[in-house]
Amino acid sequence: MALPAATLAGFPLFAQFASLWEPLLPTLHITRHSKDARIADHGEQAGHVWMVVSGWVSLTRHTPDGKQVTVGLCTSGDLFGEAGLFAHASYPYTAQVIQEGTQLLAIPSASLRHLTQHHADFSNYLMGLLSERLNRIQLTLEQMSSLTASQRLGCFLLRLCNQQQAHDGGITMPIDKQIIASYLGMKAETLSRSFAQLQPYGIEVKQATILVHDVARLHEFVCSSCGESGMCRTEDAIIEQEG
Amino acid sequence: MALPAATLAGFPLFAQFASLWEPLLPTLHITRHSKDARIADHGEQAGHVWMVVSGWVSLTRHTPDGKQVTVGLCTSGDLFGEAGLFAHASYPYTAQVIQEGTQLLAIPSASLRHLTQHHADFSNYLMGLLSERLNRIQLTLEQMSSLTASQRLGCFLLRLCNQQQAHDGGITMPIDKQIIASYLGMKAETLSRSFAQLQPYGIEVKQATILVHDVARLHEFVCSSCGESGMCRTEDAIIEQEG
Repeated sequence: MALPAATLAGFPLFAQFASLWEPLLPTLHITRHSKDARIADHGEQAGHVWMVVSGWVSLTRHTPDGKQVTVGLCTSGDLFGEAGLFAHASYPYTAQVIQEGTQLLAIPSASLRHLTQHHADFSNYLMGLLSERLNRIQLTLEQMSSLTASQRLGCFLLRLCNQQQAHDGGITMPIDKQIIASYLGMKAETLSRSFAQLQPYGIEVKQATILVHDVARLHEFVCSSCGESGMCRTEDAIIEQEG
Repeated sequence: MALPAATLAGFPLFAQFASLWEPLLPTLHITRHSKDARIADHGEQAGHVWMVVSGWVSLTRHTPDGKQVTVGLCTSGDLFGEAGLFAHASYPYTAQVIQEGTQLLAIPSASLRHLTQHHADFSNYLMGLLSERLNRIQLTLEQMSSLTASQRLGCFLLRLCNQQQAHDGGITMPIDKQIIASYLGMKAETLSRSFAQLQPYGIEVKQATILVHDVARLHEFVCSSCGESGMCRTEDAIIEQEG
């Protein structure tokens, strides 16, 4: 698909460094993918860094004894395959499309490395993204001990509310419950039980839509047990919206 | 303490960028700390980035409802407080010395930011460190689902073997078992049970020393269930040593 400059302007990675990207625009392509399409394989040399333009991608890993673990769920604006920032690195997971018609931007790793090698400000920007990702995953790890399963699910829903800017109503979640359970590190039964436990906090499931009737209440239930309480960006965004 | 240049030469962060650091050497200081000394507080503005020269530091967070979670254990060569790489950022955890006489190098955040803003190669090097940290913690998160408690303990011991280059004998572990349990996301009872379960794989505990009698056997027990099997740096180092 030809690349409309306006598409990229909506994403900070491009908007903040428009002049740097300009000579590279001919090397960038947006592609549209069917559900289940494999975008990158675990162990494959990281030839591209990807950005989700729209839709959803799961990042999974398989253990030698056959378990599958979902280590990431990416949606609009998220990057994956950042291994491509480093020469000779390989993807540490398999990336697979989980929503029909997902659109991805493929950035050749060599182009990206050219930018990071010559522009310290761009490199610093990416370092900031990695650091944010690191804080986020550190928090997820901590929440495995500090939050109950239903609170972890609640945190995931609050982030979706924030990402979809749906602070008062429905979240569309076109994702298999098996995938969400794997991502949240719980069994499918535990996920179902957790959804039931969130009912008193205003959560209602209607097929692929989840209704969040009372964000403030869900927020109180989840964030009261979280070490990031009061310092989390999702929380800020939700509170702003409410205020 | 006056800063002997030779001390820093042993650490890649300095050795690889000696000429960049030279004008900043007068701003760097190594300090020695007692057990339990608090180095940085969660939420405090990140004025320094720290490197452990020798000893051990724990990184912990407290949840609003009073739980304490250990999110990191740092030893010789490890950096912490990387929030200081970014202006106006605050520490996302409390850092506390857990071994008597721990020596730390304090790097003023402003000095470090000056380097990253003007030297893309240095910035890229730090981006690589963050990325490695990200992969490591992503793996830890995955292991919460994919490994049993005793395998997670075994993985931790293999990394210690590698760090202390003690591939055939004892690991000194001057760390409270409560801290290790918290770091591994398990209860103290589970840790004790896990140590017992590792006995058949050649693990013996003698006060602050853990004897690893058969690294290859422990390696097989742990890594056969791990998604990083065959692609992990610790593993590489251990196999090299054995070969």
